[in-house]
Amino acid sequence: MRAVDLIEKKKQGLEHTKEEIYFLVENYMKGIIEDYQMSAWLMAVCFQGLSDTETAYLTQSFVDSGEILDFSNIAKHVADKHSTGGVGDKVTLVLAPILASLGVHTAKLSGRGLGFTGGTIDKLESIPNFRCELSNEEFFNQIKNVKVAISSQSPNLTPADGKIYALRDVTATVDNKSLICASVVSKKIASGATSIVLDVKFGSGAFIKTKEEAKELADLMIKTGKLLNRKIDVVISSMEQPLGFNIGNSLEVIESIEFLKGFYGEDLYDITLALAGKTLINCGLAYDDTDVKKMVDEVIKNGSALQKFKEIIKAQGGNVNVINDYSLFEIGKNKMEIKALDSGYITKLTALDIAHSAKLLGAGRDKKGDKIDFGAGIILKKKISDNVNKGDTVMELYYNNVEQSKLDEAIKIARNSFKISKIKVEKPQLIF
Amino acid sequence: MRAVDLIEKKKQGLEHTKEEIYFLVENYMKGIIEDYQMSAWLMAVCFQGLSDTETAYLTQSFVDSGEILDFSNIAKHVADKHSTGGVGDKVTLVLAPILASLGVHTAKLSGRGLGFTGGTIDKLESIPNFRCELSNEEFFNQIKNVKVAISSQSPNLTPADGKIYALRDVTATVDNKSLICASVVSKKIASGATSIVLDVKFGSGAFIKTKEEAKELADLMIKTGKLLNRKIDVVISSMEQPLGFNIGNSLEVIESIEFLKGFYGEDLYDITLALAGKTLINCGLAYDDTDVKKMVDEVIKNGSALQKFKEIIKAQGGNVNVINDYSLFEIGKNKMEIKALDSGYITKLTALDIAHSAKLLGAGRDKKGDKIDFGAGIILKKKISDNVNKGDTVMELYYNNVEQSKLDEAIKIARNSFKISKIKVEKPQLIF
Repeated sequence: MRAVDLIEKKKQGLEHTKEEIYFLVENYMKGIIEDYQMSAWLMAVCFQGLSDTETAYLTQSFVDSGEILDFSNIAKHVADKHSTGGVGDKVTLVLAPILASLGVHTAKLSGRGLGFTGGTIDKLESIPNFRCELSNEEFFNQIKNVKVAISSQSPNLTPADGKIYALRDVTATVDNKSLICASVVSKKIASGATSIVLDVKFGSGAFIKTKEEAKELADLMIKTGKLLNRKIDVVISSMEQPLGFNIGNSLEVIESIEFLKGFYGEDLYDITLALAGKTLINCGLAYDDTDVKKMVDEVIKNGSALQKFKEIIKAQGGNVNVINDYSLFEIGKNKMEIKALDSGYITKLTALDIAHSAKLLGAGRDKKGDKIDFGAGIILKKKISDNVNKGDTVMELYYNNVEQSKLDEAIKIARNSFKISKIKVEKPQLIF
Repeated sequence: MRAVDLIEKKKQGLEHTKEEIYFLVENYMKGIIEDYQMSAWLMAVCFQGLSDTETAYLTQSFVDSGEILDFSNIAKHVADKHSTGGVGDKVTLVLAPILASLGVHTAKLSGRGLGFTGGTIDKLESIPNFRCELSNEEFFNQIKNVKVAISSQSPNLTPADGKIYALRDVTATVDNKSLICASVVSKKIASGATSIVLDVKFGSGAFIKTKEEAKELADLMIKTGKLLNRKIDVVISSMEQPLGFNIGNSLEVIESIEFLKGFYGEDLYDITLALAGKTLINCGLAYDDTDVKKMVDEVIKNGSALQKFKEIIKAQGGNVNVINDYSLFEIGKNKMEIKALDSGYITKLTALDIAHSAKLLGAGRDKKGDKIDFGAGIILKKKISDNVNKGDTVMELYYNNVEQSKLDEAIKIARNSFKISKIKVEKPQLIF
């Protein structure tokens, strides 16, 4: 078998065998197949696609390229939730403590952010002293003792995905659904989860742009799970406007703590409930959605979910006083209010623009290794369908030392990110 | 400008600007754009194609990546001929001395062979002591003094094509017509030719399989020449059966010498005449095909073309005695005759099979740097449309020390390379 022949085969739109997929991935990891051959193959895949079985083989080959975590000695069910990423998406921060406080072991491996605002790991690191780089042993022990741990992805899990993802990022081969599926699902399988719930987001603020594409990706992930004997549930949700009100690392953690205290916006609550529901029903802890709502509301109301979040912070070395004293967070020293120039209703609030503006303020990275300003970000005061009067604050920008040109651009983008009309529009549908 | 954005642009089927093409090629040569990005772009090109103007920019960027030879102080017209390659194609060996003996300065830079049997350079090196690696100065002086030189491609000409061709070869991105056109035409332009005649071959023994593809490639090359202000003529010819009778390095040189002595087969004569005609008319030395035939026949008949071949050999250090003593060539010590099992007419003689068999006997390379056995090869005793009686020799295989398994395969392939039927077929059309 030769790499060049397999590239040619895919270029011609033919289907690979399991042996061929493993040949490519294993020899790429050994350095026998070079980056330039893998990237040519990836580009051919972008044009010709992979079949469902090819996608499953690729996924499994990623899993087999590294360590596989196994919690079967600790718990019957281990939950994991993954979002394909969106603006203001802090669901993991509230969902993980809720599930753990309801008795579900939750093993969450997360990434840092690139492109948009920070990832879950970046957000958590805005809590002073919070440590995300847990060893496998620490991760295991914390799941055993606290029922939940949130750690940065170990390089020993799915290293083939890591190496191929880095290559896709610089060769314009990111946006193929089979490659996305293999990347996401392999990580979840290798991290030992038995109940996997995926939040596939689409819209201007997600890298999947349409509902149809989201549906295709969701179907493929479910099929891949079936072919590899893992139960995968998917929620498809819209990312036209940001999720919740706060965008930026410290700001999102604060919104999450408020949520666990019982103060939350509708959209963040709805999606959290939907994802919790899939997990609880999967694990046999709830019978239906009514059950789920009762259970989730209960652990918020009685404070046990907040208590669980405190336990996570404590176990991972963070300062638990942040729960009651938000001044312990870094918050941008400068605040700029963006005002409404008209009265009416918000009819558009483009997530991508908000993310772009927040990144310019310092909340995100341009490239790997860039430093994030935890205190930078945006608080939305209005969302789509809200009534607004001329002069009202629509959003607040928070920032520290930002170059004037970047600041000017961030403000300009923020100002153009929303639209006010005389005619009211409905709140956009969130979950599909 | 970022490489990844240009890859994405081509992936989406959009057209590059001249600046973008130069950005890609120049930065690739500087090592700023990596192999893996170039190969992803090349694969995107295979799917989305390049426009005529993009192809011209790519061609020019290859030319501009290295030295450009200039013979304007030596001669008004400098001819070059290039074949896209085929089995038994020894046209350069007879055409170059014919043209030079008719007063046309002929500057021929050639390559070594890969895949099929040897290239022109390999063939010439089967002449004892023949030196193909001329310095630019030697090449110039010989063209000035002898009117013709045949040298291996200097690495300083179109280095971008060299680097990209090597990458295409291992990433299954060889067969795109724009990439082929840029590779071929850039070399001809950089080598200083003012009259460029291309022989585009199609059929089982060429890497272009159909007449339509050959036509498309020919049109593109002519257009590219126009856009870059060079006159390019194209002959489209069939490569269903090998050209001439001998396949293999020494054997092909012997057939070429015989040709110049006036002993030739019809197909090799016809294509040589067609290519000579384009050049002579281009250079204003002949008016029409009748003129051309008279001129070519004359220099064969009066021995001046053969004399010119002798001068080439002498100037490039080779043993001129080979002209009259073929025993000075290495010829395979072993001969195996392939006999007809039936009587009738040859209706098929597959060039690709003959090439494959010859390669197994040692006449070609599997990979760069492999040693060629100059003496290995095949002599055809019959060609398509010829009458054959049961027991007649259809072809002879020549070889030295070949592994038994390879020899067995070579014989098997040779036996299956032809077909005998009771019904006579016409000689296949050679030139289109």
